[in-house]
Formats: sequence, structure tokens, C-alpha cells
Amino acid sequence: MRITNLLNKPAEWMQGGGPESDIVISSRIRLARNLRGYPFPGWAKKELRAQVVSCIRPALEDIPEMSGAFAEEMTQLSALEKQVLVERHLISREHAAKGPGCAVVINDQQSLSIMVNEEDHLRMQAILPGQQLMTAYRALDQVDSELETRLPYAFDPDYGYLTCCPTNLGTGLRASVMLHLPGLFLSDQMTQTMQGASKIGLAVRGQYGEGTDALANLFQISNQNTLGAKEEDIIAHLERVIEQLLRNEKNARLKVLEDHAAMIQDQIGRAYAVLKYAHIVSSKEALTHLSMIRLGCDMNVFPTEARGIVTRLLTAIQPAHLQITASTKLSMEERDVLRAEIIQENLKALTPPDFRGIIQHRDNENE
Amino acid sequence: MRITNLLNKPAEWMQGGGPESDIVISSRIRLARNLRGYPFPGWAKKELRAQVVSCIRPALEDIPEMSGAFAEEMTQLSALEKQVLVERHLISREHAAKGPGCAVVINDQQSLSIMVNEEDHLRMQAILPGQQLMTAYRALDQVDSELETRLPYAFDPDYGYLTCCPTNLGTGLRASVMLHLPGLFLSDQMTQTMQGASKIGLAVRGQYGEGTDALANLFQISNQNTLGAKEEDIIAHLERVIEQLLRNEKNARLKVLEDHAAMIQDQIGRAYAVLKYAHIVSSKEALTHLSMIRLGCDMNVFPTEARGIVTRLLTAIQPAHLQITASTKLSMEERDVLRAEIIQENLKALTPPDFRGIIQHRDNENE
Repeated sequence: MRITNLLNKPAEWMQGGGPESDIVISSRIRLARNLRGYPFPGWAKKELRAQVVSCIRPALEDIPEMSGAFAEEMTQLSALEKQVLVERHLISREHAAKGPGCAVVINDQQSLSIMVNEEDHLRMQAILPGQQLMTAYRALDQVDSELETRLPYAFDPDYGYLTCCPTNLGTGLRASVMLHLPGLFLSDQMTQTMQGASKIGLAVRGQYGEGTDALANLFQISNQNTLGAKEEDIIAHLERVIEQLLRNEKNARLKVLEDHAAMIQDQIGRAYAVLKYAHIVSSKEALTHLSMIRLGCDMNVFPTEARGIVTRLLTAIQPAHLQITASTKLSMEERDVLRAEIIQENLKALTPPDFRGIIQHRDNENE
Repeated sequence: MRITNLLNKPAEWMQGGGPESDIVISSRIRLARNLRGYPFPGWAKKELRAQVVSCIRPALEDIPEMSGAFAEEMTQLSALEKQVLVERHLISREHAAKGPGCAVVINDQQSLSIMVNEEDHLRMQAILPGQQLMTAYRALDQVDSELETRLPYAFDPDYGYLTCCPTNLGTGLRASVMLHLPGLFLSDQMTQTMQGASKIGLAVRGQYGEGTDALANLFQISNQNTLGAKEEDIIAHLERVIEQLLRNEKNARLKVLEDHAAMIQDQIGRAYAVLKYAHIVSSKEALTHLSMIRLGCDMNVFPTEARGIVTRLLTAIQPAHLQITASTKLSMEERDVLRAEIIQENLKALTPPDFRGIIQHRDNENE
């Protein structure tokens, strides 16, 4: 089935929800695997890459989790379609640029995606809304175990799974969460948080990974080490850090409310105002304001139900998503107009911010 | 009666209205006069300035237009009170900085104000809402004629009225209008307009005169020449230029609507949004947005009744006005919060922008 059919419905994780969904947007687990006897994709000629695809395809079709999944050679996808998959975190930017002999397989809920011949022969991912790292890991581990019975994985008894880049050697595991941290950002604690995370072997990055900005106060936290620890321990370590970060973020929000109530009300008020009434909205501005609306939902300034809408919009207002919605290529100016329309349409039922709840919340905390 | 009593009610011109009030905010006439036998205020010692005040005061009290007027030595006014008068265009910034021997007289409607010992012994002004240059001139001319029967004006048969600065010599007349020109500004025609005005002996300045920015798209147009022409001819010349400027501004608005409808809707939408929902608003931002709301009133996007409120707010949100309203000195941060509150309170009844009228208006024009 063509991947195009997937693009008009949002991925499961984009809808929001899941545990700790006020701060944790999504949880991702990625496993890197390679086939014994084949060069890594970066070294392989087109024919060898094609052989790897031919080898992997029947194994994937055979396992129940991926039955009825959507599979496609990268060359069959348009630039726009590939960009939509990148915006949904289903494929990497690097994979989107790949040519013949590279493929992608995605299940119907878009919770499992498998890139074939990205940096490794197999890059498998599970992505779920909220803090569900362990659930995502178990789901992906199941897929991995079933594939392992069907494919000759490159595995070394001392090193573990062999990968193209030594930073993935061992478990081939990257666990990451996308966190919404406006409290830490507004109280100027992000630099400190990032340095702290780095010291304990974690990386903090922007919304779209390395080298991207932390727009919308979204930060990705992931493990750096893949070697010398069990998968469950790597994940448990990350989970403990996330718990601490959630506490810090919640405290930071209270502190910001305490010290800068007018500033918070101003930013939330403006976010609501601009998203409801502007007619030209850039991606960056939309993300900034959506972040504040989401914070407003957490602070009882808006109904909690709005949080899901906002979470979906964070991806739906990205350039490729807009063009898929419009079924046509759009200039930047046209996108900015359509973005404003789509946001207005989605936020139509959202009532103006009501700051009485915010203050009550703060008073209760102080008792 | 103390001028303090005047400050809590807006000046007549601040309420808006009058002919051509969609574009012309106010019309001002100023006459410069001096008494024979006294040095100009800048050269006069304190005692001589006091003598001039003593000489002028009974004459002013004697004429019916200024009976019951509010008079005060500048030293009796607080810095804040003086600043309010500056923001209302009732005294000059220079006069606000003056010490002993300087005074100001203002009538109840605040349509007539007379500075004593500013640059000249007498600087008289009439200010009215809308395009009422000739009406303002006639009112001020009446005051001037009555004073002339009571005071020994310095007058030369060849040069006319003698003034401290030669640029005021002759009629001592400065006629000016405050125009709201968002159309010319948004269509990048202001530089050209200002150069054109300069060529025909007019000056175009920002809201608070020389060296001030044209915030809120407000521009002051005034005559440069005071010598060699009759008062009525100077005013008639300015009036003809204003008529042309009004036509240009109206055409520019249609053109901007034609070429940049989304941009106009965006700016008006954002102006509404921010003024309704922001909690911290600087003076500059408030003026920018109020200008767009005013344009929206002219374009049937908002009810026309809102124009008066917006016009009054243009002055009411200035720093000194805010502090007079609050009856206390406020920091910049406090002013920004109070400004947002006052604007919200005043725009409470304003319904969201309705852009259907705009398009209809444009379609009618094209028929």
C-alpha cells in the first residue's frame, strides 16, 4: 500500500495524550541493525543495497506487527511526501535525501517505522505519545526479535550489534523523549539543564535533532551511550532523569508564575490573540505561540482538551504538512496565509484565556 | 482655577470627530506675539519676565474667550502635569522645561491655550478635532484681536509682527494638521509625500513635532513661511494641499487593499488581538496597533463609533496620562501593564474584525 495514503491522517503520537502528556510530547526508541556479509549502506554499491532491500522485505512482510504496513522505495516518494515523514519524525532528514536502494516501511498507526539502508541496513523506530519509553521499547524489541529469527544480524559476542558508526555499537539503542519545557526556558534554566544532562551521558537537542533550534520550547533528550549497558538499564536511567526534569519544569512554572505573572499572562494572551486573529503566520511564530497555548492548557487558562489540538498543530503547521493539506506546492507567503487559516479553524472553539485559574493554582500551592 | 482640574477630562480635540475625521485628527493654529518695549523671553531676566506676565494676565482675564480659563505659573505645575499638557499638544516641550516668570492659560474645552514667555511673550494656540483650520483660525484671531486692543504688540509696518525667531516673522502664524496616513505609509509613499510637501513650503513631522517619530502613522503637516502672505492665504494653501493628501491617502488605502489584502487583514487582526489580550504593552506598540484599529474603522472592519475611542486612546496611553490616571508615579514596567489594562477596558465592547465589509468596499470602488 502506498505511503501517500498515510499522509492525510496524523500519526498516533501527534494526537497527544499518554502518561505525563502535559510535559512529555512523545517517546521514541530506535534500534540500529545490520546484516552480516553486506557492506554498510554508505559503502555499498546500488546493486548491493538493492540486495539488502530484497533480503529484508520478505522478513518484514512476514512478521505480524508489520503486516499491512506501508512500504516504499525512497525514489517512489515525492520530495514533499518525504518531507512530511521527516516532520513526523518517521524518517530522518538524511534518509529523505537518499536515492535508489533505500526504502521505508511504516505501520498504519505510524507508531513503527523502519528505514532500510539509512546509515545502517535497518533503522527501526517506535514512537508513542507521552512518556511511554518502556512500552515503545517492548513493542520495538518484539519486532526486532522476530526479525532476528529471519535475518542474519551482524552481531559480535564482545561488542554486541555492529553498527556503521561506533557511537551506536552494542545495543544500537537510542531512546529519546520530546519534552515541552517552557518553564525552564522562561526561567533561564535551559543552559544549566542541558549541561547537567550532558554530564550524565544524555544529549539535549532541538525539535528536529542535532543542529535544529528548540522552537516551541520543545527539547529532545536522549541517551548518548549504547555500549556496556543493557537496553532496559539505559531506558530506566533516562526515565529517572525525565522524572527529575518533570519536577524541575513544574517548579520552574510555579516560580515563573510567582515572579513574572504579568509576563506569563502577556505571553499567553498574545499567543491566543495572534493565533486567533493574524492572517499571516510564520512557522517559527506559530510554534512560539502554540507553546504558550499548551502552557496555558497546563495552567488551567484554557480547557485541557485543547492540548491535543495544539499538540497536533505543532506538526500540522510545518511546511510540508501544509502543502499536503493544500494538495499543491505553496510559496512561503502562501504557506504563512494557509498556516494562519488552519490554526484559526482548529482553535475556533477555544475561548479567551481565563487567568483566574492560574492564580488559584498558585495560591493552593502556597498553602 | 487650577490646571490640575483640567487634566482628568480629555481635551475636545482628543475625542475625535469634526470634518474629514477619518484622516484628519486635529487642526492647530498658532500665533506668536510680543510686547513692545520688553526683551524676548530668552534674553529677559526673571524680573522682566514677571513684568510681562503681570502685563498680560489682566488683558487675558478681560477677554470673554478666556474668562474662567485655567491659568498657572509653570513653577506651580508638577513635572507630570506639564508632561500631560505636552502630550495633549497644549504646551510645547520647551515650555514645560521653563522656570519662574513663565505661565500657561487654557480654556475649559482645552481648545485655546496660551503660553506666556515661551520663545515669544505670547504663543497662542487654537486646536480643534478634524479639518477645522479656518474655524480654529477665526477663533484664535478673535482672541488675538481682543488682546491687541489691550496690549502693546511689537509690530512693524514692513515686517508685520516681530518675533524672536525670524522664521515666525510677519504673521507669526503656524497652521498645522495631524493626519493619519497608514495608506501612504503602507504603500511606501511617505518619503515622496514628505519631499513633495517640502517643495511647496510645507513641513511634515512626527506626532510630537520636530525630531519625533511618526508613530501610529500620524504626521503633522504645517506651513513653513510666515512672511509675505495673508493669514487666510497661508491657511487656504495648506487646505488645498490637505485635500490632495486626503485623495492620495484614500487611493493608497484602496491600492494596498488591492495588492496586499492579506497583509492588511493580518495587521488589523493582530492589532485587535494584541490590544484585546496582551498584558504588557509599550507605548510604541500601542500606537502602532491603535493606528491599525483606526484604519479598520475607516474600512468598515470595525464599527465607525470605535474611531472616537481609538483617537482618545492615542493620547490617553501616553506615559504622563497613564500616571495621572493612576494618580501616582509609575515605572516603565508598571505603565506597560496599566496601558494594556486601560486599552482592554476601553475596547471591551469592540467586536472581532469583520473583513467582509472591506472586500465589498473594494468591489464597489471597482464598479
